Amino acid sequence: MDSRVKKSETRQFRIIFPKNLNDQGTLFGGTAMQWMDEVAYITATRFAKKKMVTVSSEKVQFLLPIKSGTIAEIVGKVSKVKNVTIEIHVVIYLEEMYSDLRQKVVEASFTFAAINNFNKPIPII
Amino acid sequence: MDSRVKKSETRQFRIIFPKNLNDQGTLFGGTAMQWMDEVAYITATRFAKKKMVTVSSEKVQFLLPIKSGTIAEIVGKVSKVKNVTIEIHVVIYLEEMYSDLRQKVVEASFTFAAINNFNKPIPII
Amino acid sequence: MDSRVKKSETRQFRIIFPKNLNDQGTLFGGTAMQWMDEVAYITATRFAKKKMVTVSSEKVQFLLPIKSGTIAEIVGKVSKVKNVTIEIHVVIYLEEMYSDLRQKVVEASFTFAAINNFNKPIPII
Amino acid sequence: MDSRVKKSETRQFRIIFPKNLNDQGTLFGGTAMQWMDEVAYITATRFAKKKMVTVSSEKVQFLLPIKSGTIAEIVGKVSKVKNVTIEIHVVIYLEEMYSDLRQKVVEASFTFAAINNFNKPIPII
Amino acid sequence: MDSRVKKSETRQFRIIFPKNLNDQGTLFGGTAMQWMDEVAYITATRFAKKKMVTVSSEKVQFLLPIKSGTIAEIVGKVSKVKNVTIEIHVVIYLEEMYSDLRQKVVEASFTFAAINNFNKPIPII
Amino acid sequence: MDSRVKKSETRQFRIIFPKNLNDQGTLFGGTAMQWMDEVAYITATRFAKKKMVTVSSEKVQFLLPIKSGTIAEIVGKVSKVKNVTIEIHVVIYLEEMYSDLRQKVVEASFTFAAINNFNKPIPII
Repeated sequence: MDSRVKKSETRQFRIIFPKNLNDQGTLFGGTAMQWMDEVAYITATRFAKKKMVTVSSEKVQFLLPIKSGTIAEIVGKVSKVKNVTIEIHVVIYLEEMYSDLRQKVVEASFTFAAINNFNKPIPII
Repeated sequence: MDSRVKKSETRQFRIIFPKNLNDQGTLFGGTAMQWMDEVAYITATRFAKKKMVTVSSEKVQFLLPIKSGTIAEIVGKVSKVKNVTIEIHVVIYLEEMYSDLRQKVVEASFTFAAINNFNKPIPII
Repeated sequence: MDSRVKKSETRQFRIIFPKNLNDQGTLFGGTAMQWMDEVAYITATRFAKKKMVTVSSEKVQFLLPIKSGTIAEIVGKVSKVKNVTIEIHVVIYLEEMYSDLRQKVVEASFTFAAINNFNKPIPII
Repeated sequence: MDSRVKKSETRQFRIIFPKNLNDQGTLFGGTAMQWMDEVAYITATRFAKKKMVTVSSEKVQFLLPIKSGTIAEIVGKVSKVKNVTIEIHVVIYLEEMYSDLRQKVVEASFTFAAINNFNKPIPII
Repeated sequence: MDSRVKKSETRQFRIIFPKNLNDQGTLFGGTAMQWMDEVAYITATRFAKKKMVTVSSEKVQFLLPIKSGTIAEIVGKVSKVKNVTIEIHVVIYLEEMYSDLRQKVVEASFTFAAINNFNKPIPII
Repeated sequence: MDSRVKKSETRQFRIIFPKNLNDQGTLFGGTAMQWMDEVAYITATRFAKKKMVTVSSEKVQFLLPIKSGTIAEIVGKVSKVKNVTIEIHVVIYLEEMYSDLRQKVVEASFTFAAINNFNKPIPII
């Protein structure tokens, strides 16, 4: 089980370009949420190897604004496997481009369900 | 106060096009979250007329998948005004294109803080 | 009839982000036209509940540039119902983020036809 | 003058991908308008070598739907030079990928004004 | 043959908007590559009138950065026709908006193969 | 040195959605190139912690088409450090969503230069 969790860990480095910014010159929160959901969805699918649907996201906490010209790493990891649902914990780390600074800036949990071709819930494992 | 809440209510109709779909042919959950955050951000700004930053989103519940060729209405409304933060309740309604069916498909709450030009929290009202 | 016109009125709030700007730092005219056509298409479909195709847009008048960091509301309303075509009047209002200023900035009319599954024109009502 | 008109003629080939489609599987009208405005803006700027702003578009006529998997050529050409405004005629031609069929599918005119750094109208030539 | 090469020449004018920029305020290299591949693909298809797939790109040389508020023309031309593959030479020219300066800024070659409906290579001509 | 190479290794998981497809229903080659350049740029920057510009890409080889509903992992790794330039090797791996199949589908090398604030080349290390 642990190796399966390890193997499905999913990472996505992104660089903040002008097209990702809001009117205040920082990463738009909704874009961060979209990136997190994409990473969570890939993590869940790579773990279960079944068709997954988003059930909910838990509290998404924005700790610090993400500025233009920084690098973001979004990391998704399986945190709980229930019968027909799975929980993915996602963190966004911010890395400055020209220094070694790296810090956690957003954190959230997403729940997915596994479904069959008739959209009925099926066991995750 | 009530009239200010009413006046800042923010609506956004969207139509689901192929560019909004995931690999299963339904609206990608992350895109729904991005739309909700945009509507919530506009609602908060139109109410407070101050610079707002996203603090967090509460549980986002996906009740039903949104198919291609349907219409979505995202509605944002002020639900709580605290000292330096404001809570916006957002709902996505799904409307079928060729029938009168309309139903609630996603629901969430977002919290924003008002900040001054030095990024310090200031009163909402 | 009037209530059907009222019910199909379609609103879309948007916020101007860097990705929407031209090289002069204002909303690109073509993007404004795309938003207006989307709102007009939704308005026409919500009124007729039939498959609609854009036939033409009438004169689109750009009254004022829309700057970054402002809010736009695009409003579509049925203005004329003919036999097989329908006319939608669309206005973009600009709202400043941190003041009560609101003014009309773009205005246009779009004509749509209702078609059946063989792409033949059919009555709107 | 004629050579200047000829030299500023502006062409843009595009291929229709899923991201450009509406829910009916054809090119979304608003996207066609955005492409035409971009080509018109480039044509006007290449002719006048001055800062241009869109004043209006005249009637945009959609003659035929543009399907996925076809090629579009958007062609912009100066059609009238007045004192402080310039008119650009834009046509979209559709080319089938695997045959020699080529036909006109959309046609429109755009008017631009030349402005100085204080946003005041200045002569085109 | 020469007239067929001439007829399939494919041009695409683009204007550099904020959404195309990297964090340094210049056109993101990857976006330039995407535009070149699109133009090369259209050129190959318009020449062969067959289903084409990208086999490879040769060295892509970035000679100069492309700044915001400039115009790019991407030009694709058939440079070699082999049995089952075709080579397209692509150049990006940069044009300043308010002067007559025009210079070559990126250059590359792309190879495409013609395939049938079973994805098997077939002769280009 | 080796640990610095290891530490700057950069991974980006993506899922292929309709918006990424060409007219043949597979990942558009130009989009793959854009993703590879983004990952290469982040890898180079994370290694050198200096301002980097793309100098060139070497031959990009497309081994297999990438279908909708598959997962792609783009991996960038420093492969050569010269005086003022650095070479990044990038591979795209394809993972099927519902099986354990994983295979290499695209491979390329990108060269970047480090520059100072006057755009003059400076040593990588």
